[in-house]
Amino acid sequence: MDTLSQLSATDAAARIAAGKLTSEALVAACLERIGQREKDVQAWAFFDAELALSQARTRDKEPRRTRLHGIPVGVKDVFDTADLPTEYGSPIYRGNRTSCDAACVAQVRERGGVILGKTVTTEFATRHPGKTRNPHNLKHTPGGSSQGSAAAVADGMVPIAFGTQTTSSVIRPAAYCGVVGYKPTFGLVNRAGLKALSDSLDHVGTLTRSVPDAALIVEELSGGPVTSFDAVPGMKPRIGFCRTPYWSQADRPTREALEQAVPRLARAGARMAEVDLDGEFARLVEVQITISTYEMFRALAYERTHFPDLISEMLMGRLLGGGRVTRAQYEEAQAIAQRCRARLADWFRDYDALLSPSAMGEAPEGLASTGEPTFGASWTVLHCPAVTVPVFRGPLGLPLGAQITGPLGKDGPTLLCAEWVQRALA
Amino acid sequence: MDTLSQLSATDAAARIAAGKLTSEALVAACLERIGQREKDVQAWAFFDAELALSQARTRDKEPRRTRLHGIPVGVKDVFDTADLPTEYGSPIYRGNRTSCDAACVAQVRERGGVILGKTVTTEFATRHPGKTRNPHNLKHTPGGSSQGSAAAVADGMVPIAFGTQTTSSVIRPAAYCGVVGYKPTFGLVNRAGLKALSDSLDHVGTLTRSVPDAALIVEELSGGPVTSFDAVPGMKPRIGFCRTPYWSQADRPTREALEQAVPRLARAGARMAEVDLDGEFARLVEVQITISTYEMFRALAYERTHFPDLISEMLMGRLLGGGRVTRAQYEEAQAIAQRCRARLADWFRDYDALLSPSAMGEAPEGLASTGEPTFGASWTVLHCPAVTVPVFRGPLGLPLGAQITGPLGKDGPTLLCAEWVQRALA
Repeated sequence: MDTLSQLSATDAAARIAAGKLTSEALVAACLERIGQREKDVQAWAFFDAELALSQARTRDKEPRRTRLHGIPVGVKDVFDTADLPTEYGSPIYRGNRTSCDAACVAQVRERGGVILGKTVTTEFATRHPGKTRNPHNLKHTPGGSSQGSAAAVADGMVPIAFGTQTTSSVIRPAAYCGVVGYKPTFGLVNRAGLKALSDSLDHVGTLTRSVPDAALIVEELSGGPVTSFDAVPGMKPRIGFCRTPYWSQADRPTREALEQAVPRLARAGARMAEVDLDGEFARLVEVQITISTYEMFRALAYERTHFPDLISEMLMGRLLGGGRVTRAQYEEAQAIAQRCRARLADWFRDYDALLSPSAMGEAPEGLASTGEPTFGASWTVLHCPAVTVPVFRGPLGLPLGAQITGPLGKDGPTLLCAEWVQRALA
Repeated sequence: MDTLSQLSATDAAARIAAGKLTSEALVAACLERIGQREKDVQAWAFFDAELALSQARTRDKEPRRTRLHGIPVGVKDVFDTADLPTEYGSPIYRGNRTSCDAACVAQVRERGGVILGKTVTTEFATRHPGKTRNPHNLKHTPGGSSQGSAAAVADGMVPIAFGTQTTSSVIRPAAYCGVVGYKPTFGLVNRAGLKALSDSLDHVGTLTRSVPDAALIVEELSGGPVTSFDAVPGMKPRIGFCRTPYWSQADRPTREALEQAVPRLARAGARMAEVDLDGEFARLVEVQITISTYEMFRALAYERTHFPDLISEMLMGRLLGGGRVTRAQYEEAQAIAQRCRARLADWFRDYDALLSPSAMGEAPEGLASTGEPTFGASWTVLHCPAVTVPVFRGPLGLPLGAQITGPLGKDGPTLLCAEWVQRALA
């Protein structure tokens, strides 16, 4: 059973299509894995094993609807679900029930997928941690905010889980947990029913164990063209190695891993060059803070004014900071973001993708912090697709990721590059 | 009491600040007006008179927080409210309770305002009408989708109400009901807790009886600079008269009213010129349909799949149309929108504002249709501020509006121009 739970969604879908696997067996294998490991990993906010199995049995009786048919999916607990509690990682919402499913949840069901349960989020998808531990070493953080999704996928509890990214909340936990994290182009997955944090920056993303699985779910939901990965072996991508203005903040093993990857990628056939994102790009981490805190102060106005005592000190500090951002500062930050998006589009005339760090280093020890989001923030502001692939190990034996970013709206080609890089560095 | 209920928010705020008016008296006057007229106008989905009065009494005991202190505000029933039902104009959500307030509702309370109640919306803010009637003639539609808000404000039941606009759902009902409708720059009012329809196009807007009232509420919520209307008498705005590519669809009285306004505005001191928004601008109504239906198909996936029998035929047809829009068609529509936004910015180097029709004509007779949204759609796609001011009358004696649009993010100057136009044509 354990082996089944480690299948990629793409492989499982092929077996289901061929009549060699039932959704019920797949879901049962995931539930068995959860049963073995959840007390240690604590990736789940809620699940109802019988509800998941009954969905799977219903799917098994039907004609196959799409590639998602019968595939279990985990849902970060910031998306509404009509049949399971939705607590947004906050004690304010203990036992909260919503009256509908978020769009991505309803779409998964419509397309034949099975909602396995809700995964742990940090408080409102910000920094204050949830209970989840890194499955590679339980003493280390899994990252945030999509920590339950990253840990559940890494640990073989579910092949696909939704995350969200406003700063680096898909890329960082994916890198720390050694899975593929994919933040699609802004808006590619519909956000209705997501607890809003920062309207300009909230992205729906995915955590999977393979790049094709990331493509599968997002393409099904967005009606995008199906990316075929058959072309990957013959690709000769043009890749810009981008240290980013924050390079010095990465630890030495991360810097060395990336720098040593460059000649390996060249030998594997990539045209490599160095790209400096200078000028206003160096302000994007600060821009991300200005935009997101201004918006969070407003988006969480109800919670902030009615339940201040149930908001962590960490979050309340950020909210109050957002309340001090003036409209003029906010507009200036949006203007910088807009100019950098235009400049990035120019860069991507010469490159298929850029390669940069996914995080500062391995997952830090301890569960009180979810680590620093710096290396995700700029790409989030730029709205472009970003994928982290688990291709390195750090000195503690924990995973390190490489981040591949591509041009706005070019998600398929970016995912192909990410898969190419992952294979080249395997 | 009736007179008090007709006060603008700005005047009421000045009296409250001077200690000459209590919030309780103001709210009581609004409730009295509702008591007299609601059986005919039917603007309200829910209100709880005692709850509103008790909020007002609490405000009266406190120091004044902001210009909104003690001012009653109506809330379109597509925004979540923790203390009143939220039904989104749909039988699917009969009696629905949400666990928090939408951002704009919580912000009004935080800033000292009083939530008077929920106003009628069409089904999920689309076309299928609610129960509201046009207060100028009960046999005519008040327009949609913000119909309860427009009628309540027009009828003196509340000075300010929130609306939303995805096509023309603030501008059209405001024009039909003879009030000021203001669709701010996209994102200026936070959308958290709004039932999402089209993430790229949903705007929070306002219905008021004066332009300064529209400025007041949006500036309070967005932290924007306070627009002083003192400069209006001395202004000499550069106004482009923009027939739009849809001019021939406006009825003759509307076309004549606009054309006759041009020399009057010039005599009042404006520098007037004609502006043709040609080329891809002529595709924006179609672009609006492509973007919004693609997004609605997904945003309402839960309702569409679980309660198809409780969705109107009109809406289901649009949703299924959205399901047939391909990702490539959607992306092409977004690309056109983006190019037109850039071109519009060029136009606004030469003009402070553009003048165009607010609707095809007077509010049509009958309550089965909410009228055509054509003249709002382009400006919605362009994300720029749009204001309709009630400056004309049609042959049936019903109001006709003039629509003033301005550059993206320049809401204050656009509101000043709208006020200038309203005074010039008074």
